Amino acid sequence: MPSSSGNSKVNPDLVKERKKCTFNTLELTHLLDGGEDKTRERHSRENFFLEDPELRSEVPLEYLSHKEKYEEAVRKACILFRKVQELQNEGKGGMENFREILGGQLGSAILKDGNPLTLHYVMFIPTLMGQGTVNQQAEWIQRAWGCDIIGTYAQTELGHGTFIRGLETIASYDPQTEEFILHSPTITSYKWWPGGLGHSANYAVVVAQLHTQGKNHGIHPFIVQLRDEETHMPLPGIKIGEIGSKLGMNSTNNGYLGFEKVRIPRTNMLMKNSQVLPDGTYVKSPSSKLTYGTMIFVRVVLVQDAATYMKKACTIATRYSAVRHQSQIKVNEPEPQIMDFLTQQHKLFPNIAGCFAFQYAANWLWETYNNVTGELESGQLENLPELHAAACVLKAVSTADAAQGVETLRLSCGGHGYMTSSNLPSTYGLVTAMCTYEGENTVLLLQTARFLLKVWQNKQNLQKLPTVSYLENAFRNNSSFQKSVQWIIGALQKTTVGKIDLANKHINDRVRNGMAYEDAWNSTSIELVGLAELHGRVIIVETFRISVEKCRNQVSRELFAVLEQLLQLYAVNTALRCCGDLLKYTDMQGKDVEVLQAWLEELLNQLRPNAVGIVDAFDFRDEVISSALGSYDGNVYERLLEEAQKSPLNAEPVNKSFKSYLKPFMKSQL
Amino acid sequence: MPSSSGNSKVNPDLVKERKKCTFNTLELTHLLDGGEDKTRERHSRENFFLEDPELRSEVPLEYLSHKEKYEEAVRKACILFRKVQELQNEGKGGMENFREILGGQLGSAILKDGNPLTLHYVMFIPTLMGQGTVNQQAEWIQRAWGCDIIGTYAQTELGHGTFIRGLETIASYDPQTEEFILHSPTITSYKWWPGGLGHSANYAVVVAQLHTQGKNHGIHPFIVQLRDEETHMPLPGIKIGEIGSKLGMNSTNNGYLGFEKVRIPRTNMLMKNSQVLPDGTYVKSPSSKLTYGTMIFVRVVLVQDAATYMKKACTIATRYSAVRHQSQIKVNEPEPQIMDFLTQQHKLFPNIAGCFAFQYAANWLWETYNNVTGELESGQLENLPELHAAACVLKAVSTADAAQGVETLRLSCGGHGYMTSSNLPSTYGLVTAMCTYEGENTVLLLQTARFLLKVWQNKQNLQKLPTVSYLENAFRNNSSFQKSVQWIIGALQKTTVGKIDLANKHINDRVRNGMAYEDAWNSTSIELVGLAELHGRVIIVETFRISVEKCRNQVSRELFAVLEQLLQLYAVNTALRCCGDLLKYTDMQGKDVEVLQAWLEELLNQLRPNAVGIVDAFDFRDEVISSALGSYDGNVYERLLEEAQKSPLNAEPVNKSFKSYLKPFMKSQL
Repeated sequence: MPSSSGNSKVNPDLVKERKKCTFNTLELTHLLDGGEDKTRERHSRENFFLEDPELRSEVPLEYLSHKEKYEEAVRKACILFRKVQELQNEGKGGMENFREILGGQLGSAILKDGNPLTLHYVMFIPTLMGQGTVNQQAEWIQRAWGCDIIGTYAQTELGHGTFIRGLETIASYDPQTEEFILHSPTITSYKWWPGGLGHSANYAVVVAQLHTQGKNHGIHPFIVQLRDEETHMPLPGIKIGEIGSKLGMNSTNNGYLGFEKVRIPRTNMLMKNSQVLPDGTYVKSPSSKLTYGTMIFVRVVLVQDAATYMKKACTIATRYSAVRHQSQIKVNEPEPQIMDFLTQQHKLFPNIAGCFAFQYAANWLWETYNNVTGELESGQLENLPELHAAACVLKAVSTADAAQGVETLRLSCGGHGYMTSSNLPSTYGLVTAMCTYEGENTVLLLQTARFLLKVWQNKQNLQKLPTVSYLENAFRNNSSFQKSVQWIIGALQKTTVGKIDLANKHINDRVRNGMAYEDAWNSTSIELVGLAELHGRVIIVETFRISVEKCRNQVSRELFAVLEQLLQLYAVNTALRCCGDLLKYTDMQGKDVEVLQAWLEELLNQLRPNAVGIVDAFDFRDEVISSALGSYDGNVYERLLEEAQKSPLNAEPVNKSFKSYLKPFMKSQL
Repeated sequence: MPSSSGNSKVNPDLVKERKKCTFNTLELTHLLDGGEDKTRERHSRENFFLEDPELRSEVPLEYLSHKEKYEEAVRKACILFRKVQELQNEGKGGMENFREILGGQLGSAILKDGNPLTLHYVMFIPTLMGQGTVNQQAEWIQRAWGCDIIGTYAQTELGHGTFIRGLETIASYDPQTEEFILHSPTITSYKWWPGGLGHSANYAVVVAQLHTQGKNHGIHPFIVQLRDEETHMPLPGIKIGEIGSKLGMNSTNNGYLGFEKVRIPRTNMLMKNSQVLPDGTYVKSPSSKLTYGTMIFVRVVLVQDAATYMKKACTIATRYSAVRHQSQIKVNEPEPQIMDFLTQQHKLFPNIAGCFAFQYAANWLWETYNNVTGELESGQLENLPELHAAACVLKAVSTADAAQGVETLRLSCGGHGYMTSSNLPSTYGLVTAMCTYEGENTVLLLQTARFLLKVWQNKQNLQKLPTVSYLENAFRNNSSFQKSVQWIIGALQKTTVGKIDLANKHINDRVRNGMAYEDAWNSTSIELVGLAELHGRVIIVETFRISVEKCRNQVSRELFAVLEQLLQLYAVNTALRCCGDLLKYTDMQGKDVEVLQAWLEELLNQLRPNAVGIVDAFDFRDEVISSALGSYDGNVYERLLEEAQKSPLNAEPVNKSFKSYLKPFMKSQL
């Protein structure tokens, strides 16, 4: 493990675990990275950033005040951006790397509680590029790219998140001066949430309802200057600040923004798709679907992030479970490693399998996204709805499962998982946020359900749609129970179809009884959410199966055996989680549940000797893991005590509150 | 609502909701408090504390540094303790009230992130009283009661939590000087976690392995002075400090403590149960079960706390869901209240029903606890194991469900639920901690499983044991499916018995195949956890049913109808959550699941008009709710913006980091 700190003495339990491992962890690392070269590149990127002493903080962030946290974050963000610029100048600055460096695991190893400048590269510049005309790009991109200006992206409002058509900020066109007037008509129309908006950015792309010639043309993006470039003072009419403390990401400087009739030139509307001519004439975009691209892209990225957070939490909890001894299995025997308790394995290993499931789902989605956006450029739109439906459900299922998984893993570390120094609380804070942003999960599941019901009602061209082609035949699947992944996938498919059919029937019944279709939809929505989720699980298990199958002749036999065990564990665990549905919709019998349960236990046993090896292969540097419980050397207790010493309260034996409050109280008599 | 701030204009949606309510909310408040008198007492207690301006903080805690948070907490804790002493002097100071004031909702409204002195009243004094001899009580209680000394309770160590027999701190007796020598032989033997231990307490009850005359007699409690009473400096040999930042409770000053051969007088061992004579002779306690009492008591309290946290989170999320408008059900109609979405009702209402379920379970457990401890005093021990098993499983199920419930409720508020000012993140932080402390949930479930299997194997006297008497007959229950609570309870009971029988068989099979019983137990533990949990749900639903039934002739018809709906919703939701088990172990068919699902939807509809009324009846003052989203007036957006203004970052338009870091970076050229 060249990338982990190897100088300290390694805990003997971990030495033992690593000796037991039956496969070559390096082989798995390369497989997950996509090749030895990619691993090397990643290591070199990690070295470049993580070994820069300027990018370290003297005092752990959690001991600083809210304001100090922000100031320290700006300091580091500027150094980080400078290094990104260096990479760019060396021609190493692809957009994918940026995300990893700014928003991904590398970035969050450096700015643990968020980077106030991230949206500049991740949203501001991409929006200028995607929605600006050639002229606008010429005017803005170079300044943005060189960081002469720092931008953010202001869409969400205090009163509107998911339902963006409901946004209230108005941009009304004044043909007299050829300006737009930006205005916040209500308190709910204040922009709320954009990262870096509070005190960091001086520009923003603002999404507002476009009014011209007495008509509202819906939401459009506008470039707005927020602060003076020299003094950083908010410009007249700009009411701006940060939104305050949150569950996590307290250095991202999420802001609010209200407009009091702020005028901007006509040319500040991003006009690649729609335009307003100088006289106020509105010229419509040729296709409104073109802006879908970025939204889907972000969801693709989130599935990848869900996998990465899970890997991190699995690494921490698994190493800790190998080092921690507690209780007794047998009287008079030494306390066992807690990983030897079957209940602990049940908390850890299905989540380890989940890391692979989500990783493969993310890979598949990324590939599909590239194919479909390639088609889009040649004007072919037909696969977009399926991609959109798949991205929605995979984002929803992977982030919800990852949040639950990380929390299960945190709780599996007992009290020490509650310590900030375990890094599990903040990992949870980051992963649970993903359930809400970029499309709230329930809303996304209902979007996928809408697609599924449409496909089900039309039943045309099913064979052309890879993720839903199973809808055509699954009904006829009568294969009796087998202890196999293939059977489980078939059963999940048949169940999904059964649930789609039933929900469809319920909607129709309700309509027949006089309900409006929309009300019938709402009345059936608990079922709809359930069937969409199950469809997501079908995609995930099937993708996992295909991906492992592809490896069969590419990896060593030892590694392949482990991959198969992980696939089986993921599949059987999924089946058990929805065994009520399987009993109802397939030929599975009560007795078969016991077979699955026994299989689950067998797989936990099989994976036990390789658990530490697998998480080692995720190959996180200690700085990225950033956990007293999860470091490579496993010196858990020494690190917990060492971290405690960093609390400023421990710098002095007696805190001043003794003299000010405690002593007077104790010495007084009532 | 006399106890809620009623001066501000109430949001019209909430006015409308309150008009729709079909029952008298005050009647429900009195019912939940246990009578009108109790409500009045609670209000007077709330006024006494919450209207004291000294007990308010100028800046919200989340903006302070870790150290400042502690100092502010000590300031408030001293004022709070002084007020508690005033109450005592007026004869109003019962121990139950103390818990509410110090650890309960009232206390956490004042010290939002924990009270560093709580353990003095909640653990230190009760331990002196419960385990000290009459002489020891005479020596210590008065000083402790008058707060001349402040104590804590130090049991958990860095390496040992749940398994207290494994504690490593040693107290070895030296008959020469008639002293105990306290010593921490390893790093894992450091005490870790006790509240107030870091810098607040100057005394502690320390639990250590007692060595005398060359023999280890297991763990015993000792009174140890930690700090000088005048200077507060740690005494020689005492290595002490705080453990550092955590997910929550950052003002509780949880500490660590190591001993380097610290001598204390023999008489500092708490000797009510066991003694060490001057010559070192150990005299054993007559019954080791006598110390069970406190442990069970704390778990009783936690079930109550789980109910209260749920009520708080339900109040916030329900009021917000009435005020928040988003998306569309029908095109061209205004955005509906999000509470009109069935999926939102599904997140809210089963949790509202859960508040009642846990409240009634807590009431029942409290009563049972009092009965059984009454019996204990007359030497009758036979009901102790059943009480212990019930307390374990109810603590585990209620805290786990409450944690999941609070998190579901937080997520149901979308992005705003991520704001600290919603008070949902810190509520989650407090409730999830309960899953771990005072007995880790998985460990507790296994203890209940052990009791159940023992009872099942012996099958004697089943009728005498109220919580498990159903084991005798449930097997024979062949009643076919009915849409009734009674049927659901019978089905859950039958399922529990089926699972106990199967797990028992699996253990026996494993033993027959040559496994040691303990290993067989471990290999079956996933099943054991599952059956214990289900047993807990049986108790909860059955207790809920009986409690509602008891109200039939005591409350108005309107209120009774609502209580019945809540009971039905809780029961049907429980049945659907474990419908896989019900399909396997009972005569329920796939078709019946659809009946339950339709019933669930029907109940959500029925409860919709009363949702705000029910949470209003929980009767939390705004200071206790402490949430921008959940206040009585529902002015959600105004409050969010107002709370944001309290961030010190918003006190100046330009933060100094612009000049120090951002401007130099932006103006430079690479």
